[in-house]
Amino acid sequence: MEQQQHLFVCILLAFCLTSSTNGGKVLVWYTEASHWINMKHVLETLVDRGHAVTVLMLFMDNKDSKFKYETFNVSFPLEEIEKFLEDYLHFSMYEMDQLSYLQIYIRHIELAKMDLYYNLKYLDGIIKSEFMMKKLKDENFDVLLADPIYPGSDLVADILGIPLVFTLRFSLVNNWERHCGQRPAPPSYVPGAMSKLTEKMDFSERVWNFGFYLLNDLMYQHFFWKDIDKYYSDVKGTPTSGCEMMGKADFWLIRTYWDFDSPHPILPNFKYVGGIHCKPAKPLPKHIEEFVQGSGEHGVIVFTFGSMINNITREKANMIASALAQIPQKVLWKYKGETPETLGANTRLYDWIPQNDLLGHPKTRAFVTHGGTNGIYEAIYHGVPMVGIPMFADQPSNIIQLKARGAALILNLNFMTTEDFRDALTIVINDKSYKENAMQLSRIHHDRPMSPRDEAIFWIEYTMRNKGAKHLRVQAHELTWFQYHSLDVLVFLLSIVLLITLLFIKACSLCFRRCCGSKRKTKRE
Amino acid sequence: MEQQQHLFVCILLAFCLTSSTNGGKVLVWYTEASHWINMKHVLETLVDRGHAVTVLMLFMDNKDSKFKYETFNVSFPLEEIEKFLEDYLHFSMYEMDQLSYLQIYIRHIELAKMDLYYNLKYLDGIIKSEFMMKKLKDENFDVLLADPIYPGSDLVADILGIPLVFTLRFSLVNNWERHCGQRPAPPSYVPGAMSKLTEKMDFSERVWNFGFYLLNDLMYQHFFWKDIDKYYSDVKGTPTSGCEMMGKADFWLIRTYWDFDSPHPILPNFKYVGGIHCKPAKPLPKHIEEFVQGSGEHGVIVFTFGSMINNITREKANMIASALAQIPQKVLWKYKGETPETLGANTRLYDWIPQNDLLGHPKTRAFVTHGGTNGIYEAIYHGVPMVGIPMFADQPSNIIQLKARGAALILNLNFMTTEDFRDALTIVINDKSYKENAMQLSRIHHDRPMSPRDEAIFWIEYTMRNKGAKHLRVQAHELTWFQYHSLDVLVFLLSIVLLITLLFIKACSLCFRRCCGSKRKTKRE
Repeated sequence: MEQQQHLFVCILLAFCLTSSTNGGKVLVWYTEASHWINMKHVLETLVDRGHAVTVLMLFMDNKDSKFKYETFNVSFPLEEIEKFLEDYLHFSMYEMDQLSYLQIYIRHIELAKMDLYYNLKYLDGIIKSEFMMKKLKDENFDVLLADPIYPGSDLVADILGIPLVFTLRFSLVNNWERHCGQRPAPPSYVPGAMSKLTEKMDFSERVWNFGFYLLNDLMYQHFFWKDIDKYYSDVKGTPTSGCEMMGKADFWLIRTYWDFDSPHPILPNFKYVGGIHCKPAKPLPKHIEEFVQGSGEHGVIVFTFGSMINNITREKANMIASALAQIPQKVLWKYKGETPETLGANTRLYDWIPQNDLLGHPKTRAFVTHGGTNGIYEAIYHGVPMVGIPMFADQPSNIIQLKARGAALILNLNFMTTEDFRDALTIVINDKSYKENAMQLSRIHHDRPMSPRDEAIFWIEYTMRNKGAKHLRVQAHELTWFQYHSLDVLVFLLSIVLLITLLFIKACSLCFRRCCGSKRKTKRE
Repeated sequence: MEQQQHLFVCILLAFCLTSSTNGGKVLVWYTEASHWINMKHVLETLVDRGHAVTVLMLFMDNKDSKFKYETFNVSFPLEEIEKFLEDYLHFSMYEMDQLSYLQIYIRHIELAKMDLYYNLKYLDGIIKSEFMMKKLKDENFDVLLADPIYPGSDLVADILGIPLVFTLRFSLVNNWERHCGQRPAPPSYVPGAMSKLTEKMDFSERVWNFGFYLLNDLMYQHFFWKDIDKYYSDVKGTPTSGCEMMGKADFWLIRTYWDFDSPHPILPNFKYVGGIHCKPAKPLPKHIEEFVQGSGEHGVIVFTFGSMINNITREKANMIASALAQIPQKVLWKYKGETPETLGANTRLYDWIPQNDLLGHPKTRAFVTHGGTNGIYEAIYHGVPMVGIPMFADQPSNIIQLKARGAALILNLNFMTTEDFRDALTIVINDKSYKENAMQLSRIHHDRPMSPRDEAIFWIEYTMRNKGAKHLRVQAHELTWFQYHSLDVLVFLLSIVLLITLLFIKACSLCFRRCCGSKRKTKRE
């Protein structure tokens, strides 16, 4: 029966590669790092299918001839944001583990405020530039495709009067999906994004998840939406809710799937396209293939901390290299830092590795990862077990989900020892259950009616040809939270019950008085 | 851009028709009337794809060589159930409009109790027959496909130890989907099935919907689940919840889609396959084609009350025929009753009509329907506007949804006059907006990644090759209602807040007393 499934995938791929389109015009919201790596694959397919893709960019550092770029200016030196990003990474990687929950929460609020400050400065570069907005308006785009990690795409889509499609990994505690997208997420079984929980929660975990939702919703309300609402209202010249603007999106393309995400309620305009960027492995460059083949029966380990983290402290690098030196596998480590003194002969450092091609190589035994969703999906696609050393954002939760599914082990960079790392690698490679579980996730990943990229393309083109998809939006968007939870109905029904009870008591007491009154009267007579 | 969509559909159809499978063994739960008409199309495709299909049947009246049938015995004369069905139809068609809401509710409870009584008698025929259960066990089926309208399929799937796929139009107030399937449905914007509401509700309608959920949930609890639980517990020999059993289903194939259903929250194992039975029109039989062509530019009207209602009272039939005689269109009316005296020359009565082929004919201007989902979907598929004269079950709600989308008008058989009917037909045919809206629903219906039948087949085969789909079930199935709504967490957190407040008050009062005490002491000194 697996044959038919593969035939299906082949036909769909063939469809994607060969069918012609009446090309549409796609405007792409600016984004960067892993978000851009992910999105680029979808954009390339859109171009291959005859659409014109215009990308808004902060600055032109990786011009790709397939797309047209529109750059915009920001009113502050970009070094400032680089410094902010470094601070954020340092806090997440080294400081957070030393702090109490309260301190982490307060620091997160500070960071969120700074992040929003810079994001709105970026947005100024587009929305407050008459020249840019006129240029975009004149282009008559058919759709705006945006990763909402940088706010403002909804406002621009609204001003341009074009449909909007989001592509999104997650928002903290799913705040955007729940409050703006109206996707239900009961805290009793839907772990908040970044909560480090899985869907299987005991009582104390449910208390933690509930509190996590509550605290972060409060944070969003006071340190995000308030400023966004003010900004949007200023631009529109009328009171405008940023969350309502976000809720106008025609589609939400969520970059997970039920291979590793917890099953949860969804909506007709939420599509799950996790692994959107994955593809079969290509042959390796000759020198890498030779190194990989030299590993013999032991095979190789692929190791990366992703696109944002290029080096770690000397001490940590030595601790890691020392563990790697103790295992029989060969290791390909993407690492731009200083070569550690303890580096073994079996380990090679690379500025860049063909990660997907390596993960799809039959000699690959394990993947050491920071837990970014892109890398995880490549490992799931090829069925490779993992050792996760997560750093920030969704990475800890990602690895915890994989651990719960028996396809990964998790380590903490600040507390792990050489022995911990060596043992984790040994277990993940030698305990067959990890490979089997990774293969099971891979089977779930592949066994769907169409590939995630084809699905994403279908709904983007759907939005273009139907000029939006408002008929898929739930009516909840038109209700207040009070109405949504039927609180007005409950108050009304309880008032009626109360009124009837009062009338009943009053009537009884009247009857009672009349009876007693007449008795007394009779007695007197 | 529409080209590519059609190419897509063609490729998917080609896949369905040509790809080979390692055939599985499908057991089909007994069902009848429109439920069977609908399911048969899926089963035929399953057979065409190499699967062996065995159908449980009450009795063998329409043996089809494509499937294997297993008949079972029931311990009461089948005339009894026919009489019950007649009573139910008479009540729904003629009596209900004369009664108060309370009377309708009480009568519904009586009917539901009778229905369950007969349904459990049917179930006896399978589950209490050692011979039948052994036969089914020995067959080693790969999946049980069931329309849960007749209860017990979940229990049998559990005993046989095989996966279960439901195919379902609706349950009253979505009780099964919500309570057993864990699909969220806030009453503030999800109209209860059979509530005669759309998703756009004003305050009074939300009150009605809330009350409708509440009353019918109570009815289910006391006049359905209590008996089902008792029956299941007796069979299993241990306390067993029928609703939990239902919740074990691997997939719920819901027979609607967002063309006419209200968008609402769904779950990863709920798939919306409305129009599962629809297909392009075939040429008409010669005598019908000649009659249709004779209609000239005015075109024809297709008229049916569905598979269950073959005639109506003489008075009603005359009133209807008289209206039809006044319009310029020709009419094909599926009607087995006595020929009405007022029948016009433009109207022909038929025992049977090729409904789908007629609805797909370019001369068809309107569809007069009782509002059954099968017929409605054929009209949507071909983009034909409707006049609905609903009778029972989901029919009134179906037509109300279509009316809200501007593709139908609604009439009440008990209160309509000849003029009402004639005018409704004239409006639906001559006001272009009805045709345009019907075509818009048709576009939504067709514009999806794969046809509903292909999607249903995909997930049925998915269940077989993966031996179930438990990884798509939400964790809510493992929670009590108290836990689901985080009430235990709330009680815990409120207790802590209360405790802290009490401790604070106690501490303040102690401090106060000590201060005042020492002052008094000082004063005394």
